[in-house]
Order: sequence, then structure tokens, then C-alpha cells
Amino acid sequence: MIIELKTIEDADQVMKAVNDKKLEHVFQHKNRVGFVDQKALGDVPFEINNVKEVITDHPAALQASRLFHPENTIIKTQHSVIGDGSFALIAGPDSIESEEHVQLMGKDVKESGATLLRGGSFKPRTNPYSFQGLGEQGLKWHREAADKLGMDMVTEIMDTRDLEMVDKYTDIFQIGTRNMQNFALLKAVGQTDKPVVLKRGMSATIDDLLNASEYIAAGGNHQIILMERGIRTFDNKYTRNTFDVSAIPVLKDLTHYPVIGDPSHAAGVTKFVEPIGLAAAAAGADGLMVEIHNHPKEAFVDGKQALTPAQFDHLAKVATKIHNLVKEAD
Amino acid sequence: MIIELKTIEDADQVMKAVNDKKLEHVFQHKNRVGFVDQKALGDVPFEINNVKEVITDHPAALQASRLFHPENTIIKTQHSVIGDGSFALIAGPDSIESEEHVQLMGKDVKESGATLLRGGSFKPRTNPYSFQGLGEQGLKWHREAADKLGMDMVTEIMDTRDLEMVDKYTDIFQIGTRNMQNFALLKAVGQTDKPVVLKRGMSATIDDLLNASEYIAAGGNHQIILMERGIRTFDNKYTRNTFDVSAIPVLKDLTHYPVIGDPSHAAGVTKFVEPIGLAAAAAGADGLMVEIHNHPKEAFVDGKQALTPAQFDHLAKVATKIHNLVKEAD
Amino acid sequence: MIIELKTIEDADQVMKAVNDKKLEHVFQHKNRVGFVDQKALGDVPFEINNVKEVITDHPAALQASRLFHPENTIIKTQHSVIGDGSFALIAGPDSIESEEHVQLMGKDVKESGATLLRGGSFKPRTNPYSFQGLGEQGLKWHREAADKLGMDMVTEIMDTRDLEMVDKYTDIFQIGTRNMQNFALLKAVGQTDKPVVLKRGMSATIDDLLNASEYIAAGGNHQIILMERGIRTFDNKYTRNTFDVSAIPVLKDLTHYPVIGDPSHAAGVTKFVEPIGLAAAAAGADGLMVEIHNHPKEAFVDGKQALTPAQFDHLAKVATKIHNLVKEAD
Amino acid sequence: MIIELKTIEDADQVMKAVNDKKLEHVFQHKNRVGFVDQKALGDVPFEINNVKEVITDHPAALQASRLFHPENTIIKTQHSVIGDGSFALIAGPDSIESEEHVQLMGKDVKESGATLLRGGSFKPRTNPYSFQGLGEQGLKWHREAADKLGMDMVTEIMDTRDLEMVDKYTDIFQIGTRNMQNFALLKAVGQTDKPVVLKRGMSATIDDLLNASEYIAAGGNHQIILMERGIRTFDNKYTRNTFDVSAIPVLKDLTHYPVIGDPSHAAGVTKFVEPIGLAAAAAGADGLMVEIHNHPKEAFVDGKQALTPAQFDHLAKVATKIHNLVKEAD
Repeated sequence: MIIELKTIEDADQVMKAVNDKKLEHVFQHKNRVGFVDQKALGDVPFEINNVKEVITDHPAALQASRLFHPENTIIKTQHSVIGDGSFALIAGPDSIESEEHVQLMGKDVKESGATLLRGGSFKPRTNPYSFQGLGEQGLKWHREAADKLGMDMVTEIMDTRDLEMVDKYTDIFQIGTRNMQNFALLKAVGQTDKPVVLKRGMSATIDDLLNASEYIAAGGNHQIILMERGIRTFDNKYTRNTFDVSAIPVLKDLTHYPVIGDPSHAAGVTKFVEPIGLAAAAAGADGLMVEIHNHPKEAFVDGKQALTPAQFDHLAKVATKIHNLVKEAD
Repeated sequence: MIIELKTIEDADQVMKAVNDKKLEHVFQHKNRVGFVDQKALGDVPFEINNVKEVITDHPAALQASRLFHPENTIIKTQHSVIGDGSFALIAGPDSIESEEHVQLMGKDVKESGATLLRGGSFKPRTNPYSFQGLGEQGLKWHREAADKLGMDMVTEIMDTRDLEMVDKYTDIFQIGTRNMQNFALLKAVGQTDKPVVLKRGMSATIDDLLNASEYIAAGGNHQIILMERGIRTFDNKYTRNTFDVSAIPVLKDLTHYPVIGDPSHAAGVTKFVEPIGLAAAAAGADGLMVEIHNHPKEAFVDGKQALTPAQFDHLAKVATKIHNLVKEAD
Repeated sequence: MIIELKTIEDADQVMKAVNDKKLEHVFQHKNRVGFVDQKALGDVPFEINNVKEVITDHPAALQASRLFHPENTIIKTQHSVIGDGSFALIAGPDSIESEEHVQLMGKDVKESGATLLRGGSFKPRTNPYSFQGLGEQGLKWHREAADKLGMDMVTEIMDTRDLEMVDKYTDIFQIGTRNMQNFALLKAVGQTDKPVVLKRGMSATIDDLLNASEYIAAGGNHQIILMERGIRTFDNKYTRNTFDVSAIPVLKDLTHYPVIGDPSHAAGVTKFVEPIGLAAAAAGADGLMVEIHNHPKEAFVDGKQALTPAQFDHLAKVATKIHNLVKEAD
Repeated sequence: MIIELKTIEDADQVMKAVNDKKLEHVFQHKNRVGFVDQKALGDVPFEINNVKEVITDHPAALQASRLFHPENTIIKTQHSVIGDGSFALIAGPDSIESEEHVQLMGKDVKESGATLLRGGSFKPRTNPYSFQGLGEQGLKWHREAADKLGMDMVTEIMDTRDLEMVDKYTDIFQIGTRNMQNFALLKAVGQTDKPVVLKRGMSATIDDLLNASEYIAAGGNHQIILMERGIRTFDNKYTRNTFDVSAIPVLKDLTHYPVIGDPSHAAGVTKFVEPIGLAAAAAGADGLMVEIHNHPKEAFVDGKQALTPAQFDHLAKVATKIHNLVKEAD
């Protein structure tokens, strides 16, 4: 149940009583108070005054809901803003390969407008014998490149035991598709004060994704960026996954978190990355995360889906134009 | 096997020999000859001269393939052109409801730029007790409205026994999702000389769709328009289907037929029709088919997903701008 | 709404009033009357006496529901009974290939306990250039073989225009996966008095299948046999489809029609046909439909999934034992 | 590449050279040596004598493959054997609820033939506000119950940081569906010497499951039990998941590990647990894992799918009979 009070002070009063009674799973956002365990006013063991509205039909992921938090969440890092109406560009190599390479890639994508430098040092590979990432050495090179270029660093964390180490380097945590319901990991990043990019699981419903985000929010971290990256369907002959483009407006409707698209993993092959990226922009995404490589055929991982810096530049420009066109038409 | 000859005359020569030998399933397009049953030059029981290239790795749907027919197919009807680089708008009510209604809806969508007036008189309803369409009376009203407004008529055919009747009225046949592999019906429209809009089945792979189109082409009718309308996946809570936006660039890559999007059936609810329609345009669609209704709540069928004429006008304008923007950026 | 009356005579009275008032979509089964368009007693424009129970929460496919028709439907043909607690065996070649071949296959499967001889003379092939079946010649040979062996003939119909012709030969119509929502065809066989095997569409939900059956029932034909044959999912590397084994108990729970399994199309490869067939039997199927061939590698269609007569014999025996074991344990 | 040598001694020789050359990802099983990184004999930097056969077409999950390890893996714990041709029964409550409850449930399932007592103390709940399990207290009660009853304990681990704690109590680790590709966790249990039950992810392909198992095997732990528990498809109205029954024979064909079925999570409702469990047995499963509860409506988690002890007793008996019947018919 979400209760909209007349004023923020009214809501503060409610929270005081909540704390006195030691009620669990109760959250405040401005003049709204959300009760997870109480489903009706009568369930609350004290009187509540100045109620404006009581909302009982809301998603289980209460804090993620626009009914609890109507205005957009805007994520700010040192060099970037996500969710404020601008179009965020996160780009970089799939894997950190070397000190020089990540700097070179970072320089290229920065010139095309990217402010966030992505790259993996821990790689969730399907097969254990594949390259698993450079680990802490990769994190270091990644950090150095970001600092040198004045960009924000985004990198994936896969193991709760790595939290302290990854936290030492990164600006934004990324939770990968295969870990979207690794609840221990979600709880761990929920304890930090850094933004988290949460990728949709490959067979996760919209509700699953919101519930996964709620694990982070429940820990007190509300800096969440949701990412659509393609789902698993019956046809993956020509693209690796099916980019669920309507998930973007659906999520924007249900939740206040920014939503970005990953056309690289959806496409799986270079030639379809741009049209998917443009579609994401047209559907209302707040940005894109794209994998690039200067020599795709020599990439350590996923070279088949990497854009060259020039291809990324084209995508970045056209996607941004579409984003602006759609925003102006609103 | 597709054989590219040096000249069209060389290809004509090959076809002469093919006819002499009474070979089956052999097709010519300009200087190309496609052999379905012969997989290598050695399988052909006569000598072929002036061969430029032999292509053996092509889709089973040979005539649909760009390898057989490299240039885009452009569909021309009295009032419309589809596939020539412009953005086609097909709109109208889900069902023909009355003489006045189809005229009113037609007038509205024409003002927003639509040149093709859609509407169903035979409705493929999940349940037999639902409204099944007005039948021939609907076709008549639909035809009259199209004539009065100077538009082309597009309507669904569901039964081979109705071919003559529907053919009497319509400009373009539509084959619905549930009949995408109704091979008898595909063969029947393949015998006509009218364009066919072929909607992708809800669990049809890209290859299934191409093979279904080949049933039409095999009959000699190459005026085919492919339509993505959403596929069935594990999540249909917030949208009725999952619009497979990457199917658009994939199909444009594989085949020469125009590809259009149907955001109405994919969304299933009005508020998501526009973002899906815009995404389709951004991904390279040659047009959209959209359901509209002046009083969605009173629509005979599928009112929940109908746009009002004003909403359609907005979608039509923004989608066309995106289409042009993407084309210019190419 | 389904109304259970005290006696059959009470229900007869209700139907008399229904006919007087010319109400549509009202059906009687013994002492039950089902109203499709009236959702509450108050919607019925006359008084109803001796009401025992009013059921408003039932599937849209009213006649298919056990709430309307609690006891099992039993299908009887000259040589077979399906749905009476015995285990029905339908077997034969995928396609009718020759007069001799269908007789030879029929003889073999009869010796293994099959009483129904399957075989296709109209084949719904994905690609138009594949073998499409022998047509009426095949039907004749199939009929002769069935007569000679004292078996029932089961064959697929694909086109409403073929109804009269196929009806002339077959004992049981089969509606294939790709035509499960070919509503014109369903209506056509609904007008006949012969049993219909209705195969589940490859992405049809349970409700879709029941609604498709209702198209047949709405025409007055209640001799319906439902068939699970595998659905389309994200993994078809090792089997062609995913046999949805739980659909069998779900359908047996929801509906009164017999439910049989087709392990051949689900498996797609010979070695997995038997375990899937046994699973179907264990899950409560009323029988199996299996494709066999004496020389699988030379089969006109789908030889990769055909059992040899000896393999079928093994499957038939073990499946029947499992069926009996489960029935006794009930 | 898998090389079959003439004798085990020959294989030992190869491994000696492998160690000398410090080659990585090379494994020996009896007279077979599997090279992950070398795809042909010529890739190996030393000569290999007494080669019987070279197999290059094998799954990426080399150690999981029957081509590397032809005979069945048999898992032995103090009170149980899995994979030796007998039918293993793992049962217990979804969650450990209290000291008394787990003992009571354990006693009941033991009487029905179960030798393994399951129960969760760490629960992977979709929503963070749901009951998350009793943690270490639950593990203690679970261990005590198992010891008292002479059963083996099976429990889920969700966080690499819990490894030492869970290891202190359990006999068998369980990796849940949502963690099937939590590679850090797979690596962690791969370092232990205890059996691991690996549940298939809800959209994991067969190959994904084998590759996940390979993460465990790569660490040196080959005591792996694979579990089919239902996959996510387009229809979950009547059952929670689609039990992929053919995955059982497919896995038994591809790999040497035991394969068991979890009908509880597939069904999601009590009434369909038994038919799915029987189907799994008929399809060749080596056992079942089933959730039970004496008062399903009061269960902490998933009461809707719990069998009562009496229902489990019936399932256990019939499933075992089917298992034996199928085995004898082989």
C-alpha cells in the first residue's frame, strides 16, 4: 500500500510512528509512504492523518514504482547525467585488453560523445575454458583510462567477494544478464552508494526486472539504471537475442529509473547493431551502451558484434538526433 | 543454386533449355537463374555458358532472396507506392463497422497521410462466439469508402473459398498471423495479380516467414509485403506481443520485399503503439499499419489498442520524420 | 454462464424458452445449459426454475469445459475407441507413398496394437518446393489399406475446398499444427459428423487450443481429440520441439475430450521418440500417434523421426503397460 | 579434441607430457585425454603414441561429454546412491521452518523411500521483502534432522561468501535455477569435494546447462547431478513452468551425469506434480526432487505446489514402478 499524504511533514510524522512501532519494509519518498506488509489502512497499528490518497494496486517492487516515486530518477556521476532528458552514451570494448587499448577506445568513443567508458575485467563466459577477463589488472587500466580522459568508468561485478576490490576502481557497477537474479550480489551493491546498471535477464519478465532492482533499492541504493539487452526467444538464427523494444516504454511507464538499451548483445552481429540502437532511441531510451573495437576480428571477446569507432560515431549521432526529435514532438 | 549469368540474354538462353528439359522449380530474374532442385552446376542436364557466379549458399526461399533479386521490390497500387524509399501509411479501423464509420475513419487517416485504408470484414477471432466480421457487406462499404476517398483498400482473406469474392473488392490481400502457414490460402493468393500483405505468424521464425512468402511467389505473384507484428514470448503482461524490431533490418537484409510494422497488435494497448511504431521506423521499416477508432471503447474489436485519429496523426508525422532522418543519414 | 438444473427435463424446458426467444450461443448438455452471451441469471430474458448451481467462472470455450460436460467424451469409430480408459494407438507413415507401402506399414502397426492408420496425402510443408503429398490418389490407397486391414483411417485436411473429397475417404479428420487457428477449416469440419484430431499449434496456449476446439463444437461436432505435439521454445538443438508433457494432465483436467500425444514431431529424431511417448503415457494421455517407416532414410518426408516397425512395437508395448500401471494406481 | 588411447597407461604417458609442457585445460579419464585448446593432433606440441581414436566433434563442455567419459557417473553419499540404475528420491519442505517441522517432514518422506532430505535455509525469492530463509539456524536444524533420521542433507547455496558455512552442514550442495550461470558460485562449489545438484536455468539451453556443469568439473569436482525443473515458455497459465521432459533423455544421451526431475517447481500447483513426476520417471530420470508439506496452506514458501506426505507416498511408489518397468524393458 502506498499512502500519499498532504505534505512531506505529514509523511515524516508517519515515518516517526513507523520507527516507534519498529515496522519493517516501510519507505518514504517525499509526501508518500509505502508499506510492503500492510495492504490496507486498517493494517497499520496507528492512526494516519492527512491522507490524500491510498494506492493498493501497485507492483510488488514498491520503491521502483512511479506510484511511489512519480518523478524521474536522475543519475549523476562526475562526468555524466543519465535520465534528465539527455541521451547518455556508454561505450568501450567488451573486455579490457591492455592499458593502451582501453585508452585508445576511450579516446575514440569520447570524441563521439560518450561520457561513460565501459569494459569488462570479469567476464561471465558460457564456457569455463574461455577467457575470463584480466581481473584487477584490467580494473586498474580501465580506471586510469577513465581518469585520463575525464570519463566515468562502468564495469561488471560477478562475485560478492569482489565487492571491495571493484568498488575501489569503478564509478558505476554493472550487473550482468546472468546475474540479474543473483540476489546476494544485488544486496551487496545495494549496500554501496554507487549507481548500478542492471541488465535484464535473458528470460526475465518486466516484473522480474523490477523485483531485481528492488533488491538494490531495499538496501538503500536508489541509483539504478535499467537495461534492455534482448531476450531469449524461439528465433536466434540472424540475431543473438530478440531486442524487446517495447520494454523501454513499458519500463518508463512503470518506473522512475532511467532505461537504456544495449544493441550489441541483442544483435550479436555488427550489421544489426545500428538499427536496433536507433529503434531503442525512438522508443524512448535514455541512452545506449555499445561495444566497440578497432579491430573487431582480434577482439578477445564478442568481436562479431563490435562496432568500429567510425560505426559507433554514426550510430551515436543518428540515435541522438532521433532522441531529440522524439522529445521535441512530445 | 543461383546462377548469375553475364547478360539477361544468357539467362533467357538457360530458361529456354530449362523449358525444353521440362525442369521444375527454376526461376529467372533478369540475368539470374535460380534452381531449387539442382544444387550444383553438375546437376543441370545441359551446359550453361557465360556464368558469372554460382551461389549455392542461399535461403530455401530462393525467390525471396536478395541473392536472386538484389534490388528492392517496389509495390505500386493506384494511390500508393510501397518500398521505394517513402514511408507508407496503412490505417483504418480493426473491423468494418458501418458505411459511415469506414468513410469517417478513412477521411481522418487520409488527412494524416495514409494512402491505404485497412479494415477487416472477416475477423480471425480466437473464440467462435466473438464477432466474426460483416462479410461481403463490409467489403462493399470498405470498397466504396476507398473509392470515394481515393485510397487503396487492404483487407484480410481467411478462406480459399472466399477468394473470388474478396478479389472483387480489394486492392491488396492481407494474410493474417494465424494463417501465415495456411499453405492453401497462400497458394490461392499466389495465383492472383494483386499485392499481398503477409503478416508474420506469432511464433514464425524469419525463415518460416520467407518460406511462407515463397508459396505466394511460387504461384507467380511477387508483389509481397512482409509485416512484423510481434511474436509470442514468455512475457505478455504489459504488451500483447513482443515486437521483434530487429526482424525489420534482418528481413531488409535477406529479402527484396518491402517490410512494414504493425505496432497495434504488438502493443495491445494504446499507450505503447506510438513508441513501437517509432522504433519500427527507426529500424528501417518501409511503413506502418495502424488501427484507429474514433471511439475506441465502442470499437467492435480490439478497441484497447486503437489510436484515435489525433493520436495516429502524431505517430504518422513523427514516424515519417524519423524515417527520413535515418534515410538521409545512410 | 453454465446453469446446472435439477433434471434433464428442466434443462429441456430452458432450451425451449431459449429457442422461443431465439437466443444465440446457448448449448445444452444433459441437465446443464451453457449461455455464452449471458453472464448472469439476470441477463436471461425469462425465468429459469429448478436451478441447482450457476457457474460463472468457466473458460471461454464453454462446450469444451468439464464444468459444462463433466464426464469424459468417448470417441468410437468402427475399429477403435478413444478416451474410454484404454490406450489408443494411431500409427503409420508420415506420407502415403504407394499402395504397397501403406498396406505394409498398416499391417505392421496393426500387429503392434494400432487400430488407426495414419498417413498424409496433403502435406503442410514449410517450403513450397518440397513434396506436397499425393493428393486424392494417396487418399484412395490409404482407404483401401484401412479397409483391407480392418483399421480406421486418419488423414490431414488443409483446405476447405477439399472437404468433400477428403470426407469421401477418411474416418477421422486431422487438423495440423499450422492450421490450428485456420478458423474457416475448423468451421468446415465442425459441420461434419466425423471425429477430428486437433493438433496443438506450435505456439498455441492451452486456452488457444480449447478455443480452436470450440470452433468445431460450435458447428455441432463434439467428436474432438486433442493432441499435444511439442511447442516452440528457445531450445531446439537436440529435439525439434519441446514436448509440453504437462499439457496432458492440464487438458484432462479442463476438458472432457480425449488427449493424445505425438512424440514423433516433438522429438524430430528417432532416438527420443520412445522416451517422449512413454512420458506422455505416464502423464495420462489416452493414446499416441506415431510415425513409422520401414526404411526411414528413404521416407518421402520426416524420415529422421520415423520409428521402424520394431521400434514402434517396443514403444507400443511399454507405453501401454505404463498407461495401465498409472490407471490401476489411481 | 578427445583422444582415445589404447590403454590407461598410454593416457598417463600423454598427461605426463602435458604436465611437462604445462598445457592448460587438458583432462584425463581412464584411457581418454581431452584437450580443450587443441583441436587437432597437430596442435599438440609433442608426439602421441597408441592413439585408438580422435574425436573432434564434441560439446564445448568436454568433461561432461559421454565421448570423454562413456560410463555413467554414480554419486554415492552416506545413505544414498544416485545414477546406478536405482530411483533416487529427494524430498522435504521447500524451506526449513523449525526444528520439529523438518524432522517431521523427514520422517514422513523417509517412510516413503526418500534417502535425501531437502530444504532451503537461503531462499532465492523474486521479491526482497519475501521470507529469505532462516540462514544458519535452518542449516543446523536440517543437519540434525538428517543425522537423526539417517538421511543425506541437500540444501541450496546462494552466495560464495557462505561456502564455508554451508559446507559445514550439508552433504550435497544445490545450485538454484537463478544461479545456474552464477559462475563465481559454480567455481566455488567446484573446489569442494561434495556432490552438487545443478538446476537448469529457466531459459537455459541444454548446452548452457552442460557448460555450467563444466565450471564445476573444471575445478576438479565431478560429482554433479543435473536437474530439469521446467523452462519458461509462452504459456504459464495452468502450470508455473513448462517441464521439458525430453531434456531428460537428451541429457542422458549427451552426458554421463545423473539427471533428476523436479516436478514441484514445474507444476506450481499440487494437482499436476504427480503426472509430471511420473512422466520424468518414464522418460528415464534417475530420480525426483519433490517438495512436501503437512499443511501446505501454512507453508512459509510455495505451499501451492507442495504435496502432502500421503500424496508424495503415492507419487514415490508409482514413479519407482514406472522406472523399474522402463528399465526392464530396455
